[in-house]
Amino acid sequence: MSLPRRSEILRDFLAQQNLDAWIAWRPDEILMMTGHLTRWNVSVLLYPKNAQPVLFIPALEPRDHLPSNAKIVEYPWGVLDCPDPFPSLKEKIVQEMHIARVSPARVGMLHRSSRGTLSMLSAENSPFPADIGDQFASMIGPRDPQAESAFLGLFEYKTPEEVAAVRLANQIALLGAEAFERSSVPGAREIEIAAAIETAITLQTGVGEIFYSKGWAMVQSGPNSAEGGMFNRSTGRAIESADLVMLELATCVNGYWSDLTRTIAVGPLRAELQRVYDTALRANQAAVQAVAPGTTAGAVDAAAREVIRQAGLASFFTHHTGHHVGFRYHDPGFAIVPGSSAKLASGMIVTIEPGIYVPELGGGARQEENVLVTETGREVLSQLAA
Amino acid sequence: MSLPRRSEILRDFLAQQNLDAWIAWRPDEILMMTGHLTRWNVSVLLYPKNAQPVLFIPALEPRDHLPSNAKIVEYPWGVLDCPDPFPSLKEKIVQEMHIARVSPARVGMLHRSSRGTLSMLSAENSPFPADIGDQFASMIGPRDPQAESAFLGLFEYKTPEEVAAVRLANQIALLGAEAFERSSVPGAREIEIAAAIETAITLQTGVGEIFYSKGWAMVQSGPNSAEGGMFNRSTGRAIESADLVMLELATCVNGYWSDLTRTIAVGPLRAELQRVYDTALRANQAAVQAVAPGTTAGAVDAAAREVIRQAGLASFFTHHTGHHVGFRYHDPGFAIVPGSSAKLASGMIVTIEPGIYVPELGGGARQEENVLVTETGREVLSQLAA
Repeated sequence: MSLPRRSEILRDFLAQQNLDAWIAWRPDEILMMTGHLTRWNVSVLLYPKNAQPVLFIPALEPRDHLPSNAKIVEYPWGVLDCPDPFPSLKEKIVQEMHIARVSPARVGMLHRSSRGTLSMLSAENSPFPADIGDQFASMIGPRDPQAESAFLGLFEYKTPEEVAAVRLANQIALLGAEAFERSSVPGAREIEIAAAIETAITLQTGVGEIFYSKGWAMVQSGPNSAEGGMFNRSTGRAIESADLVMLELATCVNGYWSDLTRTIAVGPLRAELQRVYDTALRANQAAVQAVAPGTTAGAVDAAAREVIRQAGLASFFTHHTGHHVGFRYHDPGFAIVPGSSAKLASGMIVTIEPGIYVPELGGGARQEENVLVTETGREVLSQLAA
Repeated sequence: MSLPRRSEILRDFLAQQNLDAWIAWRPDEILMMTGHLTRWNVSVLLYPKNAQPVLFIPALEPRDHLPSNAKIVEYPWGVLDCPDPFPSLKEKIVQEMHIARVSPARVGMLHRSSRGTLSMLSAENSPFPADIGDQFASMIGPRDPQAESAFLGLFEYKTPEEVAAVRLANQIALLGAEAFERSSVPGAREIEIAAAIETAITLQTGVGEIFYSKGWAMVQSGPNSAEGGMFNRSTGRAIESADLVMLELATCVNGYWSDLTRTIAVGPLRAELQRVYDTALRANQAAVQAVAPGTTAGAVDAAAREVIRQAGLASFFTHHTGHHVGFRYHDPGFAIVPGSSAKLASGMIVTIEPGIYVPELGGGARQEENVLVTETGREVLSQLAA
């Protein structure tokens, strides 16, 4: 059986929606549609059904990693004597729609989006004008919520090329996890450990095909690990022996994401904490083993939750069991939660991350894997669990 | 003369706009209005003219750094059996408007915003639903572009407390600049230098009053420095002697930002590159010296541009001379560009960052300072220039 390529999926989507083209301008949308990671966060993609995609890039965009599968059109963003480059951008979009024989009334887009990925420059949103969505909307057909919902559904499936990219992100994340285990010793401050992890990931930039590698590490130790469900932050606290230490790690490699959690014990744990640790690990393993095509998200969630319930710790597992991942730290798509009838399918990548947080015991534990659904079962992209 | 506090500024603003209250939910807005850095990026602020501010926080928000100057109201975001917490949030907002005697029709907000700052968790946007702005808009009075514009203007002035916070961010950024100078030696890879800089900044977390310290470093060396105007990225390139090496550094400390650039020469430069370096430094100094209350942004820009023009390098300085900074990496407000008649005033903090990029010479240089406009002139918060 030959697996579909992203370009085939997109052309089928446009055909089904009776659209000539789709417009995208958020980094994660452009990544999903073309594999391209934008730099300044002001690139726009016109994706026609029957012609080559067109990527509109700002004048300032570096030229060293532009996609080869798109026509590149520059517009004057970042040019000093052009304070408003957007009329020019819109003119160029209209022109390219004409060239590609696209009827503007038959162009769709995602009007509002949350949780998109950002500029690689810093933790700052796009410098697009605030109403850019409205500006684009005025150029095309009426809003179609059904098409928008179907578009978001395209994030759930990963092609073999995309799986390879997410696998690479996980391999790099595991270098961070190694640094975590190496540096989590009594006396080390949480923030020092976090810095070591982020450095291990950053340093992969420039190695082989990796042009961008960045990690966001959160290390929570001892009583702070009991707040692991709150995703607090790394503090200046120094690790003590008999601590549980939890790492929450976001890793972005060439635009693709891994979402990894590890918890380790620094020295022998008190029996109650050891049980928290063991139970979180077994819950993870049970849910990972439950991942298979055709299985419901609810069944996977139940596999984790049942292990924790049997250990009498149910009330300390307060969140979902997982979510889609890859084009973002948290992809759109169904969550792995109690009762969900959404079905896993081959080509999906989900996280499995049951956690147990017990303030009264001064500790919490969560193990998180990134799991590919295969034709016959699963592949753990982040290893650890079998 | 006593300087205004932020709370006074906000109450004046509401009075001038004839509003009972303002609603904010983007991290940089909440920071500007209360000094509080949100964690999950799903907090909402109701700021009444005549009552205490109310901060609505998600159930998952850590409690260790909540503002003391606001009433805290929790809503069930992140609670597993509450898939949609937003009806509850809106109900609580309505209730608090009632308690504070706020008429919903007299509540304003910023409907669309670009370039906001993000969740401190990772380079990911807010997990708010995509239409959260529309949801809030439906609860309050009609949109008022004039009030929104005036609100954005509030970012331009910094109170003494805010100046102190931005000064601290710059002091931490300078630790990054020291790491940059120390590690920029022949053979070091750009990305290694960037990692050393980011580590120096990260490690300040937990020191004294600093609960969050993070840097984003971009190191561009040799020919890559000639692309410094494009804000490319750190690569795997190893520094060679006689290189210009440029650091672009975003630093966030407790929510407040510094935007710093340094360029250094690794070993003696060729004469042409030395001239590029010297000219960029002199242009920076000239523009910094021009900063004073009452001076126009255009005059400051001209001071930098004239130095570069006289050196015959005008065509290689392709961008603005600066922008406001502090609540974001790039604050809203006027830019320092040719011909601008916008006037500097005491309490503003602007960057001064003329740059010269000459691909044919294989190098570029930019020095960037963060400059506070004082009653009598200026204070360089990032030192270097006099």
